[in-house]
Order: sequence, then C-alpha cells, then structure tokens
Amino acid sequence: MQHLIDLNSLSPEQLYEIVDMAGRISQNPSHYAEACKGKIMATLFYEPSTRTQMSFQSAMLRLGGSIIGFDNPSGSSVAKGESLKDTIRVVSGYSDVVVIRNPNEGAALASSLYSKVPVINAGDGGHLHPTQTLTDIVTLHNIKGRTENLTIGLCGDLLNGRTVHSLIKTMCKFKGNSFVLISTPKLGLPDYIKELLDEAGCPYKELTSLHKAIEELDVLYMTRIQRERISSDAEYEAQRGIYILDAKKLEAAKPDLCILHPLPRVDEIEVEVDDDPRACYFLQAEYGMFARMALLVTMLVKDSDIGTTEKEGKVKITVDSTKCLNPRCITRKEHYLPNRSLQIGEAIACEYCEHRI
Amino acid sequence: MQHLIDLNSLSPEQLYEIVDMAGRISQNPSHYAEACKGKIMATLFYEPSTRTQMSFQSAMLRLGGSIIGFDNPSGSSVAKGESLKDTIRVVSGYSDVVVIRNPNEGAALASSLYSKVPVINAGDGGHLHPTQTLTDIVTLHNIKGRTENLTIGLCGDLLNGRTVHSLIKTMCKFKGNSFVLISTPKLGLPDYIKELLDEAGCPYKELTSLHKAIEELDVLYMTRIQRERISSDAEYEAQRGIYILDAKKLEAAKPDLCILHPLPRVDEIEVEVDDDPRACYFLQAEYGMFARMALLVTMLVKDSDIGTTEKEGKVKITVDSTKCLNPRCITRKEHYLPNRSLQIGEAIACEYCEHRI
Amino acid sequence: MQHLIDLNSLSPEQLYEIVDMAGRISQNPSHYAEACKGKIMATLFYEPSTRTQMSFQSAMLRLGGSIIGFDNPSGSSVAKGESLKDTIRVVSGYSDVVVIRNPNEGAALASSLYSKVPVINAGDGGHLHPTQTLTDIVTLHNIKGRTENLTIGLCGDLLNGRTVHSLIKTMCKFKGNSFVLISTPKLGLPDYIKELLDEAGCPYKELTSLHKAIEELDVLYMTRIQRERISSDAEYEAQRGIYILDAKKLEAAKPDLCILHPLPRVDEIEVEVDDDPRACYFLQAEYGMFARMALLVTMLVKDSDIGTTEKEGKVKITVDSTKCLNPRCITRKEHYLPNRSLQIGEAIACEYCEHRI
Repeated sequence: MQHLIDLNSLSPEQLYEIVDMAGRISQNPSHYAEACKGKIMATLFYEPSTRTQMSFQSAMLRLGGSIIGFDNPSGSSVAKGESLKDTIRVVSGYSDVVVIRNPNEGAALASSLYSKVPVINAGDGGHLHPTQTLTDIVTLHNIKGRTENLTIGLCGDLLNGRTVHSLIKTMCKFKGNSFVLISTPKLGLPDYIKELLDEAGCPYKELTSLHKAIEELDVLYMTRIQRERISSDAEYEAQRGIYILDAKKLEAAKPDLCILHPLPRVDEIEVEVDDDPRACYFLQAEYGMFARMALLVTMLVKDSDIGTTEKEGKVKITVDSTKCLNPRCITRKEHYLPNRSLQIGEAIACEYCEHRI
Repeated sequence: MQHLIDLNSLSPEQLYEIVDMAGRISQNPSHYAEACKGKIMATLFYEPSTRTQMSFQSAMLRLGGSIIGFDNPSGSSVAKGESLKDTIRVVSGYSDVVVIRNPNEGAALASSLYSKVPVINAGDGGHLHPTQTLTDIVTLHNIKGRTENLTIGLCGDLLNGRTVHSLIKTMCKFKGNSFVLISTPKLGLPDYIKELLDEAGCPYKELTSLHKAIEELDVLYMTRIQRERISSDAEYEAQRGIYILDAKKLEAAKPDLCILHPLPRVDEIEVEVDDDPRACYFLQAEYGMFARMALLVTMLVKDSDIGTTEKEGKVKITVDSTKCLNPRCITRKEHYLPNRSLQIGEAIACEYCEHRI
Repeated sequence: MQHLIDLNSLSPEQLYEIVDMAGRISQNPSHYAEACKGKIMATLFYEPSTRTQMSFQSAMLRLGGSIIGFDNPSGSSVAKGESLKDTIRVVSGYSDVVVIRNPNEGAALASSLYSKVPVINAGDGGHLHPTQTLTDIVTLHNIKGRTENLTIGLCGDLLNGRTVHSLIKTMCKFKGNSFVLISTPKLGLPDYIKELLDEAGCPYKELTSLHKAIEELDVLYMTRIQRERISSDAEYEAQRGIYILDAKKLEAAKPDLCILHPLPRVDEIEVEVDDDPRACYFLQAEYGMFARMALLVTMLVKDSDIGTTEKEGKVKITVDSTKCLNPRCITRKEHYLPNRSLQIGEAIACEYCEHRI
C-alpha cells in the first residue's frame, strides 16, 4: 500500500506521470467524473487550512467520490485525548484514503505506519507540504511549458516556509534550474536545505533586495510571513512588509515572468498586481485542484508505485534507539511511536521530521 | 454570467418563473434528482446560519450536486487575514456556484465582481437576504394562491429585519398589496424603505399594537428581535417580548390568516400556536428548500437571464470618487474595492450597501 | 413512522435481523452501494463525537446517500436560542433521516415527537447510545460467532458509562450470558441496572480487581473514565489509571478472549496490547460502520417495524401531570415538552430519561 508523505520519495519519472495526468484531467474533466465513484476521502485537519482542504474536497467530488472528516479538533475525539494512532486506525477503517494536516512535524509519516489505506500529507507543521509543491510543478509545467532551465526567485519567509523547502527539494531534481533566495538574514533558508542544493550541484545566491533580483527571474515565488510560525508579534511586525511586490518593482521584470504564491496572501503582493498577466497565483490555485485530482486517481484508481517510503541516497537504520530532540517532532507528543532515523551522507536524521540528531 | 445579489434586480416575470419552477419541483422532485449532477456548490458562511446553510445544502444535494464550504471563519483562511477577493477568486475556481453569507453590507455584490461563477447572496449583514424573500413569495404563492391583493402585517424588529426590508421591496411590485407595520418606535421601518413604498404607491400604516392590527390581516409576518444586531443587552431585554403571538391574540384573526416567520424564533410566537392550522412557518422553511432548488436549477441548468446587476430606475455612475460612509459597508473593510454608486431619483447611494451618500 | 431511540424497544428477533443485515453488507458492500441513493441524512451533533459522526457519515455515503448537519452548536441556530422542537421540525423537512446526539437525557425521544422522518439516537447525555450497543452485538456475533452463553467482563466507569448500561440491557435478552462488573465502589453500576439484571434472572458479580476477574472472561469490555462526566478534576485523577489493561494482565486470560472498547481510549489499554490478536476494538469500530449501514437500510429502504416506542413490560401512562426531577432530563430544558411517564413494575419513571419519579 502506498502513501504520499514526501514528494522527495518520487522519482522525476513518477512526478512527470502525475503532472501529465493533471494535464489530461484539466483538458477533459468529464472523462474522470466518476473515476473515484463509491470511494471516500477522509480529511483530518488538525489545524485550519480552508485553501488546502477545499482543494482536496473539490478534487475528490469532481472525481465522483465523497468526503468525511474534520477541520476543527475541538469538535473531534482529539478533544477527548485520543492518540493519532487510534484516530488513524479507526478513520482508515471508514475511508479509502486519508488526507492529514497536523501541526507536528512527521505526523503524516507517523499516520502512515498505522493506516489501512493510503495517507496523503497535507502539511505537517513547518516540515513538508508535498501537494503544494505538486501544485507548483503542475503550474510551471502548464504556464512555462517546462520545469527545467529556470531561474527561480524565492522571496519572503524562507526559514519557516514549508512550501519553499519542498519546492526547492523537488526543483533541484530537474536539470538546469538555479535559485535566487531573497530574504532578511533572520528569515533565511535553513542550512540543511542549502546542503541539499550543494549535494545536487544546484547553483543559488542569497540577496536581501527583491528589486535587485527581479530582472533575471523566470519565476518569482512570493511567500507570506507566517504569523503563526513566528514567536513574538513584535518580530512579526518587524519582518512583514519588507518584501512587497507592486507594479513599480515589476517594471524591471521579464515580460514572461511567472509570479506564484501558495496563498493565502496578506499584503506581500499589492492588489494592483492581480491584473498583470504575469500574476499566476490564482491560476496556480486552480491547477492545485487538478494536481490533487491526478494524485487521487493515481493512488486510488490505477495501481501505482508512487510514494515509496524508501528515499534515494538515504539508508534506513533498522535497530534504533536514538530519540529525536526536535520539540515539534510528532515523536515528542505521541510516545508510542518507534524511533526511526536515516543516515544521510555523514549525518543521522529523524525519519519523521528529518532533524539532524 | 449571472448572480443573485438583490431580488430587486428581477422583474416580476423573472420572479414568477422561479416561483413556478419551485412549484414544479415540489410536485415532482425525482424528475430533478440529477439536474445538478457533477456540479459543486461552495457555501461560504462568514457568520453562523444553520437554517440557511442546511436549506441550500439539501437543495443542492436533492439536485444531485455536491458541496464544499465553511461555516466557521476561525477555521478558514480568513483567520490568516485573507481578503474577500482572494477567497472568492480561489473558491470560484473550485466550484460551479458560490453561496455567500457575510456580516458586511454589500459583501455579496463585492464577491460577484471577482467570482468566476454565479454568486448567490445568502445574507450580507443587515442589508439583503434575497433567498429568504424568494422563500416567502413561494410560500405565499402556494398557501394563499396569490402574491397580489394581500394585506400584509409585519411585526417585531422592522428596523434591523433584513428579511422584512427585502419582502416589502418585492411585494410592492405586485398590485394591490398593502402593509401594516407593527413595532415600537425604536424598531420602526427605516425611512428609505418607506420612500420605496411611497414611490410604488403602496399603502401602509404604522401601529404599535399587534392586537389592534391582527383582525384585518391576510398575512402576519412575525420576526425575531435580533440580539446580535442590538447594541446593549438592556436594550434587547427592553424590546423582546413586546410582541408575542399567542392563541388569545389569534382569536380576532381571519380563519385563513397565514402566519409566517423566517425562523429561528426565540419566544415571539408561543409554542401553543404551532398546532393552529394558520401557523405556516415550518411549511415555509420547507418551501425554502424548493425555492433554492428552483434558483439553482435556473442559474446552473437552464441558461437564464436572472440576476442582472442592472437595477430598474437606477442609473449607474461610472466614473466615481465618492466613498461610502456606512461603517458596516464592505468597502470599509476591503479597501481595494472600487467605488460604485447609483443615482436613485434625486439621491446618490452606494451600490454595495445602498446607503445614501 | 419508526425511530431508534432505545435498543430495548427491539425484540431479539428484530435485533438479529439487523445483525444479519450487517453481516450481509460487510460480505458484499458493493451490492448496497446505491441502496440510499437520493436520500439525505441530517447529523445533528450538539456535543462533539467525531467517532460516532464519521461512522454514520461513512455508512450513509457507502449506501450512496448524502449528508447535511452540524457538529458545532455555536455555529448553528442553537446559538440564536432555537428550541430543539423547531430545529427538528425544520431539519426533518430537509432530510430523510435525523441522527441526533445531545447532552440532555431524553433528547432523542423528544426529537422523535416532532420529526417528520425517522430519528436515530446517537447518544443522549449519560442515558442511551443504542448504535454503540448495536455495534457491540454485531462485533460479538462476527468475532465470537454468538451473542449467547458468554461471560462478559465490564471494566472501568460503570456508573456513567452509557455504552455499558445499554450493552447490559441488551445482552440480558439473550440466554446464558453472565456479567462480571469490575470497578471501584465510586464508579459502580447504578442500582436500576442491577434491578434489570435481577428481573432478567441474569447472574452477575462485582469485583474491584481486573487481575482476579480476567481469567474466566470470554469478553472484556473496557471503558474510558469520562472526564466530562465527572465533577472534579481531582476525582478524575483519582479514578483514572486504576484499571489499565496491559500485556502482563493478559497472560492469565483465555486465548480466545475478545477485548472490546467503545473508543476513544485515553490510557486504560496500553498500546502494547494493540498487537495482541485478542484486541478487537479497532475491528469493532469498523463493524460499527456496517451496523449503521444495516440500520439505515432497515429504516429507510425496506419498510420495517423496528424501533416501536412501545416497550415490553412497560405501561404508558397517558394522562400525566408528573414532572421529571432529573436535572439532566431534556424536559428541564425544553419546557413545552409534554410529561410522559412509564409504569415499570412497581415504579414510575420518566419516559424521556427513565429516571424513577
């Protein structure tokens, strides 16, 4: 049985397969209108995300399937102190696929250990958000016509931006891509992602000015400064509004620049930009629905080998006694979880949250 | 593409068309069981209203369609500070029709400016609630057999009663209707509605006693004193319970009186009245489902011209710099919205919330 | 029109019929995939219970039906002070079956007085929870192959455990069953249930040690100490953790012991037990879905006579002026409800909550 925990566990070929499927579906949706008829998707959202949840729900409904789930833990058994394991064991008995979003890092992998049906990671804390990245790839494939040889600018919160980390990991699998990292030092890209870029031999530079960076970009990926991921409000106020994209800044940009944003935005893109043909973020949200339809069809309909938990270039450590020290790791909350760590080059990392041990 | 923001934008003919459709559906629901198959309705409820939301949901489900949405903004992207525009742009990419309820006046019209699919106004603050009025018309058509030559009593909160304002606007389009306005001076009908009655040459009188008024009525429309629309609790306690309909008061009423209430009621109608054959408010709720089925079929299935935003007797002002001063107007919250105002006779009004400028 | 308020109102034959149906459905679910097509189930959950709600929802969806409802009263008309009667009258006009969970005892019976469609009791306070019991019976029938001649241990909170009371009432209808009641004196089984055991001539003993009891059991039914039903936190802390089932205690148990738990569990069963073949509680949750499918098919599809409100050996008292004094009875909250009481042997009991008067 297969899961989608980390897009990284897919080969470029597998990824292309889903991207192609998304294209075919968007061309001819009625052909897929009953592809998942009689199947039930459970959406277990332990933190709010209407965007992602509605995208999955409309995807499943457009495939003829149906939906159960919650978006409001206080109204759920969780309020009675139920463990993640128990919730997953029971809900996977009711449904054909489980989509989970959880504030703890590694929660999706943890769920996959106990689920009777495929698990899709819809975001585990600040860790991974593979279907957002899948959305981004599908969008680039359709708008730029390629996912290779692109100069990709990433702007805003690169420290906590889950979607940014996931996008970088995936894009450096395709040849000829380079990155321009635009952020304040305080919100710069974490070192372990930079290591991945180096390992992949993928060129990148770090800038603090969006204005200076914009002219060379094929793609500009804007991100929200996430209040809920920043400790103090003062810190939040200091960081937000440093990188605001407006019509003025866009004057220096290429005519075929592709502006993306995972949404929701607060004010990092001025509303005036929405009418610029280079603004693709609303289109991106729509491709997100087709990307998720493609994923569901691939996982539920055609028997596929996506989402192998084996990760290339990583050696699983079987007998294992090392506890993860990351306070946000799911293993710190759900104590019955077995220790699982990976050897990545020299380093040892927790398999759940991928923090170095 | 068409929306339903204000029932006022429909001609009596268009209105009758929907009313007839509601009748045909209620006679033969199975005939329409797959009319909206494969279509998705998004219900965006920014304030609670189980009544309205369930009525829309059952309507769409009984037409074979499906549903996404939220009723709990704290669990939605709104909690992350997303603008109405962004939410609508994205959700209208997932769905075939958007049903919106929002505490800000004009929010539905604002949504229609950015939606890719039809928008239905399910209540915008104290402003409009067209599908409730549609429900009322369908109910009168079926129970009284006519929507003309009726003496209609309206009792309770006529100041804040959105449904009352909307019902009056619509009923004065039909010939021979007259109104009896029953309320305390503090909760009397706003002047701009009285102006409409005068413009339409529609007779009305204002009374403070339900007892005195009841004997001449064909229809008695009771309303709830809405706690959430009244500033102080003291004020609320003072107003509620002044007009309570009981078996005693009904003794003076006509045998074929039709008692309506938009529901939910608190205590403005005694429970003992429920068993009186003249009590039609539960039946009214059921007609509400058929009215919404008719609306969805008309908007989504047969290509119709309902809901033109052109309003009869109102001249759109194109180049426009006048800001609306109504603190509850959506334009005060969503600053990117273009100014839009209308010339109505002598006066200028904001097109969103219709407040005189 | 029929309801399911109390499993006790079913004869063993009627119960078997549903149990058999559940078996047929679990063997061949696709045969029933459209049994409830075009039908709508309303789930009115006035207190959180994801487990029960999702089980009902997946049951209805797997029968091809659809769903409306709420799980969050603050987001419902209830927040506007609507009575249970009004909610039921309106919602039963939108739907084909109403599933209600409410913290007040007797709320389901009260609902059935005003509903236009069948009502299913999904838990009314600490009173009844018939579909959990139905789940338990279906599980025993499938795992033990019988519901007779079983030695059944019940452990934990026997005072407040709604599911325990309901299970005992039902199991003593089948011949040859005996009970071992394992609890602290503070959380012992209420006297009126013991009276029922005596009336049914059903042997039972009370023990305080799980260790001593376990070896003779065919079935061990563990329950959660329900924080929300115990007054003080101190009291809760004192009671919980007294009866924790672990691998050690299981050494003395029969090899074919069947361990059940209504779920959610907190820590009354150690996680290590989950991998023991005798642990059946997750399987039980799955049978719960099939049990509910069988119930819905029986109530909505084949015209059945289940759920007669007549209760064997109980005489309804028609003219009735005795008010119930149980503070948790629905009649204390919804004052329009008619008094209803039953003569049970010598005693008189409120028909809503069954408290002796």
